[in-house]
Amino acid sequence: MLDTVKKFPEQAEESLKLKLDFEFEGIKNVAVAGMGGSAISGDILKHFSKIPFFVLRDYEIPPFIDENTLFIAISYSGNTEETLTCFEKAIKKCKTLAITSGGKLSEMAENKIIIPSGMQPRAAIAYLLFPLAKLLSKMNVLSQINIEEAIYLIKSNRNQIEKVAEKIAHEIEGIPIIYGHGFASAIARRWHQQLNENAKMPSFSFCLPECNHNELEAWERKLGNFTCIFLRNRNEDGRIKKRFDFMKKIYKEKAKVVEVFSVGKNDFSRAVSLLYTGDLVSIYKSIIDNIDAEPVNLISKLKEELSQHSRSSSQGFPSERVRSSH
Amino acid sequence: MLDTVKKFPEQAEESLKLKLDFEFEGIKNVAVAGMGGSAISGDILKHFSKIPFFVLRDYEIPPFIDENTLFIAISYSGNTEETLTCFEKAIKKCKTLAITSGGKLSEMAENKIIIPSGMQPRAAIAYLLFPLAKLLSKMNVLSQINIEEAIYLIKSNRNQIEKVAEKIAHEIEGIPIIYGHGFASAIARRWHQQLNENAKMPSFSFCLPECNHNELEAWERKLGNFTCIFLRNRNEDGRIKKRFDFMKKIYKEKAKVVEVFSVGKNDFSRAVSLLYTGDLVSIYKSIIDNIDAEPVNLISKLKEELSQHSRSSSQGFPSERVRSSH
Repeated sequence: MLDTVKKFPEQAEESLKLKLDFEFEGIKNVAVAGMGGSAISGDILKHFSKIPFFVLRDYEIPPFIDENTLFIAISYSGNTEETLTCFEKAIKKCKTLAITSGGKLSEMAENKIIIPSGMQPRAAIAYLLFPLAKLLSKMNVLSQINIEEAIYLIKSNRNQIEKVAEKIAHEIEGIPIIYGHGFASAIARRWHQQLNENAKMPSFSFCLPECNHNELEAWERKLGNFTCIFLRNRNEDGRIKKRFDFMKKIYKEKAKVVEVFSVGKNDFSRAVSLLYTGDLVSIYKSIIDNIDAEPVNLISKLKEELSQHSRSSSQGFPSERVRSSH
Repeated sequence: MLDTVKKFPEQAEESLKLKLDFEFEGIKNVAVAGMGGSAISGDILKHFSKIPFFVLRDYEIPPFIDENTLFIAISYSGNTEETLTCFEKAIKKCKTLAITSGGKLSEMAENKIIIPSGMQPRAAIAYLLFPLAKLLSKMNVLSQINIEEAIYLIKSNRNQIEKVAEKIAHEIEGIPIIYGHGFASAIARRWHQQLNENAKMPSFSFCLPECNHNELEAWERKLGNFTCIFLRNRNEDGRIKKRFDFMKKIYKEKAKVVEVFSVGKNDFSRAVSLLYTGDLVSIYKSIIDNIDAEPVNLISKLKEELSQHSRSSSQGFPSERVRSSH
C-alpha cells in the first residue's frame, strides 16, 4: 500500500484529466454525503466555501436542502449503505452529482464523476478531492483553491515529506492524538482515521481552540501513554501559536509531543501537504509495527453482516431467525 | 459540585422563567458561537433544526451569514475571547442575541438573556440550553422539542438516573470512549468533555455510523486500556442497533463495554436524560478518583497567559519581549 500512497502526486495529476462538464445553475448551498475516506474531501473543502456547505455522515438528509442545493454523494465503492440512502432521498429534491468508481451509486446517478476502481477507498483520496475542488472552484463555490500549486508543491517536496513522515511514524509511542486548527482540523481527523485503518491502532483528534476549553484538563493527570502530534503552520494566527506553545509546555510533561509544519504558500496547499504526510505516516507506522495496512477485516465483516441482514429481511424472514442463522 | 449538578432539574425549571420577549423577523438560518460547555447546547439543538444551523467554535465567522442570520453568542462568563471576536464581527451584519451571565458580552449585546452568575460554566447547562430551546421552538426554528416533558422526566426519574450514573462511574476502567448516534452524538461529546473537565482524565467520543468506517479497525489490536460507553435508545433505527450489537461483540474482546439507555418519549427528552446522566457520571468519577472537580487550573492558566499577552501587546510591547517576561 506504501507504493499506492506514494503515487498521490501522480494520482492528483491524473484526477484532473477527468471530465467535469456539468452545468449546475442557481446553487445556494452544497451538501456532501459520504462516510470515512469518502467524506473527508467534503471536510477539507468546506473550509474554503463561500456558501453554506454541509457534510452528511448518516442515513438522513436535513429537511432544508432543496432545489438550490447541489447534493454530492461520494462513495468510492458506490455501494455505501448510508450514502445510497441519502442519495435516494436527495435525488427527489436537489441537484445531484455522484463521485464513485461504480456500484449502485453509478447506476442511480445521472451526473457522475467515474474514478478508477481497484484501490482501497482511503488510497483514492486524490480522485475524491481534486476533481471536486476544481469543479466547485469553477462554480465559484470555493475560493482560494490553487490546485496546480498544491500538486507542484507535493511533487517537488515529495522526498522531504516522505522523510518527515517516516520519522514521525518512528516517533509515535503509545496512542497518537492529533491536533489541528482551521483547515487542519479536517486533516487531523484524516490522520487519526488513517492511523485507525492502516496501522489498526487507536488514534484520536481534536481541534483548536475548542480543545483548550475541555481536553486541556485531561492533562492534569497522566493516564495512558500518548504521543500528541500538532499540525502547525508557519503563518498561523498569533493566538493559535500561543495556544500551541502553551499546550506543548503542558503536554510534554505527561506525553510525547511531535510538531509537524505544513509547507505551501496558501491554505489549500498546506492542507494537501499535511494530508499527504499523514497518509504516509499511517503506512510507515503499519510497517514498523508489522501490520498489513491493506485489509480492513472488521469493517468488511460488519458490512457483510449488515448486507446479509438486509437481504434476508427483504425476503421476509423474521429478524430473530435471521440473527441466529449467522 | 455534585450538589449543583444534582440541581439540574430545578435549574431547568428556573431557567424557563427568564424573559424571552425578543422579536426576530425573517430568520433563514442560525449560527451559535461558543466554546466548550457554552457551545454544547448549540450542538444539541442543531439536531432539531428545520433551517440551516451552524455551531462556530473559532475566531472566524463564515462569509455567508448575513441579515437573515440569527447569530447567538453563548458565553457563560461573557468574556470568552473567541466568542467575543465572532460577536464583534457578527453584530455588523446579523441579527444578534447573547446568552451570558455578564462580562463584556453583556455590555456589547442589545438582545440578551442574562443568566445567574457564580457557577462553573459547565454546571450552568440548564440555563444555556432550555431558554434557547424555548425561544427557537417559539420561532419555529426547532421542531419536536417538548421541554416540559423533558423536565418532568428528569425530575421523576432523578433517583434512577443518579443510581445509573454512579454505577457507570464505578465501572469505568482506564480511558472512557463514548459512542452515540444522531442526537446522542452531541451528548457523547458532552460526556467526554465533562470527563475531561470534571474528572481530569482523557476521554474521547465518536459518532455512529461514521466510526464504523475507520475507528472500528483500531480494535484489531489491543493497545491501551479503555471502557467503551454506548449511548443507546430503545427505539433506535434497526441498522444502528445492528451496528451497536456488532461493536459490542468486537470491542468487548479488547475493552470493557458499558451500555446506557436513554429514557423519554421523544428525542429531546432522551437527549436531556443522557446529558444529565453524563454530567453526573463525570462528577461521581471525580469523587471515586479523589479529584476536585471544580477548579480547571490549566484552562485558567492558559486564559491568564493569553489575556496578559493581549494586554501587553496592546500597550505596544514587542511580542518577543512579552513572551520572555512571563
